[in-house]
Amino acid sequence: MAVRTPDPDPDVPEEPNASSRPSVNPGWLSDVELAEIRQRLPLLYVEAVPVRVDGLGVVTEVGVLLRSTPTGQMTRSLVSGRVMYGETIREALFRHLEKDLGPMAFPQLPTSAVPFQVAEYFPMPGVSLFSDDRQHAVSLAYVVPVTGTCEPRQDALEVTWMTAVEAASDAVAAEMEGGRGALVRSALASVGCLH
Amino acid sequence: MAVRTPDPDPDVPEEPNASSRPSVNPGWLSDVELAEIRQRLPLLYVEAVPVRVDGLGVVTEVGVLLRSTPTGQMTRSLVSGRVMYGETIREALFRHLEKDLGPMAFPQLPTSAVPFQVAEYFPMPGVSLFSDDRQHAVSLAYVVPVTGTCEPRQDALEVTWMTAVEAASDAVAAEMEGGRGALVRSALASVGCLH
Amino acid sequence: MAVRTPDPDPDVPEEPNASSRPSVNPGWLSDVELAEIRQRLPLLYVEAVPVRVDGLGVVTEVGVLLRSTPTGQMTRSLVSGRVMYGETIREALFRHLEKDLGPMAFPQLPTSAVPFQVAEYFPMPGVSLFSDDRQHAVSLAYVVPVTGTCEPRQDALEVTWMTAVEAASDAVAAEMEGGRGALVRSALASVGCLH
Amino acid sequence: MAVRTPDPDPDVPEEPNASSRPSVNPGWLSDVELAEIRQRLPLLYVEAVPVRVDGLGVVTEVGVLLRSTPTGQMTRSLVSGRVMYGETIREALFRHLEKDLGPMAFPQLPTSAVPFQVAEYFPMPGVSLFSDDRQHAVSLAYVVPVTGTCEPRQDALEVTWMTAVEAASDAVAAEMEGGRGALVRSALASVGCLH
Repeated sequence: MAVRTPDPDPDVPEEPNASSRPSVNPGWLSDVELAEIRQRLPLLYVEAVPVRVDGLGVVTEVGVLLRSTPTGQMTRSLVSGRVMYGETIREALFRHLEKDLGPMAFPQLPTSAVPFQVAEYFPMPGVSLFSDDRQHAVSLAYVVPVTGTCEPRQDALEVTWMTAVEAASDAVAAEMEGGRGALVRSALASVGCLH
Repeated sequence: MAVRTPDPDPDVPEEPNASSRPSVNPGWLSDVELAEIRQRLPLLYVEAVPVRVDGLGVVTEVGVLLRSTPTGQMTRSLVSGRVMYGETIREALFRHLEKDLGPMAFPQLPTSAVPFQVAEYFPMPGVSLFSDDRQHAVSLAYVVPVTGTCEPRQDALEVTWMTAVEAASDAVAAEMEGGRGALVRSALASVGCLH
Repeated sequence: MAVRTPDPDPDVPEEPNASSRPSVNPGWLSDVELAEIRQRLPLLYVEAVPVRVDGLGVVTEVGVLLRSTPTGQMTRSLVSGRVMYGETIREALFRHLEKDLGPMAFPQLPTSAVPFQVAEYFPMPGVSLFSDDRQHAVSLAYVVPVTGTCEPRQDALEVTWMTAVEAASDAVAAEMEGGRGALVRSALASVGCLH
Repeated sequence: MAVRTPDPDPDVPEEPNASSRPSVNPGWLSDVELAEIRQRLPLLYVEAVPVRVDGLGVVTEVGVLLRSTPTGQMTRSLVSGRVMYGETIREALFRHLEKDLGPMAFPQLPTSAVPFQVAEYFPMPGVSLFSDDRQHAVSLAYVVPVTGTCEPRQDALEVTWMTAVEAASDAVAAEMEGGRGALVRSALASVGCLH
């Protein structure tokens, strides 16, 4: 499974050996099924911009994931993944935060399910700010304070903590997958930290 | 096709004779395919609460659709429908507004794609405020001022214009499909009109 | 000083013996000055609806203050108070949370300063949903999770924790000052908990 | 009256010859009174980023005001002004839009009074993103589509219509008063147009 941009390894935890076992959970999809559906329907994602905050709720640092692609290229990304059948938005958000930041990150999930932005990823670049050559995905994006220790799991190599100014820089935007530099800036704007 | 709650006849305009023609547009799904996918993935919807506003943007009336179900029961609903493959949120919203309110409604689509609420519909009642026995659907809901004349098409019998107080009443909520009374109240709260 | 509705005793902590001392801090106002300004300018307030949340950020309980008015009447209210000169919105919010809930409430201030609602209080009832016979006040309202122990200080007798359904009830709304029942419902709608 | 940054000539329409006439409307303030209050209380403002939108609500152009300061310097600004005593947020927004864009701009005021950002202006730069050497002002900022013809009145020389990319550029930000370049970017982020 040579998936690329949005969620580099999104379905492995939910679908171990997906193609070799009978699909007991109807929400699990084999690689073949998922590949086919990706040409037919917009898939629903959640994304999170992890942040550190001070005692007054002001964002002091922004967490960006560093990943290695299958071809060995380094790219930056956000916490991201699919919403599964039967799963609430919050459950999906929590699952992907734990998957990408480890079990000791202690994220404070938002009280409201209204995202700071709805990011629309199309296979063809240029339709919107965001692209994903695998699929049409619609992603609900949230700013999530984390209070614990982040230990990236799976293929994320590390979580890099940056100031708001660094995170919004052109240099970081250029390293981010699928146009997510714009999503980071939008996250910063939503918390009043975009210069 | 005996569909029920969310969007009573959602796919007819996009998928005429879906089961009898070759699927030229990969985003079109046959009834059988759609029925199967509905057991596997959350489907992405948009919903709109049509409103009339005064010159200062204050909501003066709320539009609620009156429909007849296949069994002849009267229910109330909102503008609602799926987001198709390749379609932006705004295109889907506009398409469903035109489908349900007619071509002369002249809706003013929001400048922001951030919804006032994300409504999660599960097949089993009780998981969230909203239910849909056909599927797991996640709906991005918007308040949309309309400035023209509404002539409901398809199976909607009429658009009933109500005051905010009427629209938020228990009587209207009891007639709405899938728990959408809560969505109307949330819409009213978002525009500062919920008592 | 027989103040009434919004914040029953808002300025005492900031302005001890306000009328008897020279105004060293230019942001401090004597009672006479404040009374006069209240007839000339809209005053800026912050309000908070304290909530308890579960591990996924879902609101499980809503905190409502019970107060005794100078005339001995029991009324319900929210955390509320003025923004002082030179103070940020967040500082004001934190100060009033501490004033009304005590120092061990450990509120989690929002990452965004965008309120869930802007409540406009006018001296004459009927202009908006909210009224305050002392003044024209504009209040930025936030939902704030608290994780510690609440010990109301000053004139608040207790914090009553209620379910979302109780907090949104007509009975509670009837006991709330200045129309704040509508603000509680709006808060609940913003976090997806209003039925 | 040598006012400078936020609203270059905010009170003239409301307070003609303010210092020479008896203050019949208690909401009117003489220059001396206003100057004094500005050292004592945060003043409430509204600001608007005027935009042109296409049929789907996508922002296509952003309107920025060009002004000449009393010293002859050219600066860029937004629609901005105080909320008066007894005036609703929407009335203030409409009044300042008409003042700055003329009577034929036909602005579409938002259905929700919740701003896309709360901008806090302090006399000392560095406390927040925004500064105003005259006062502590808290501004509720809105994106407002205009459908008519803009003819700036008073001291605004013209409305310059720009693309989102131009409006978000460092060059434009450098010409804007009080740090409002950040507010324009935040406005663009809120409508999904910030790259």
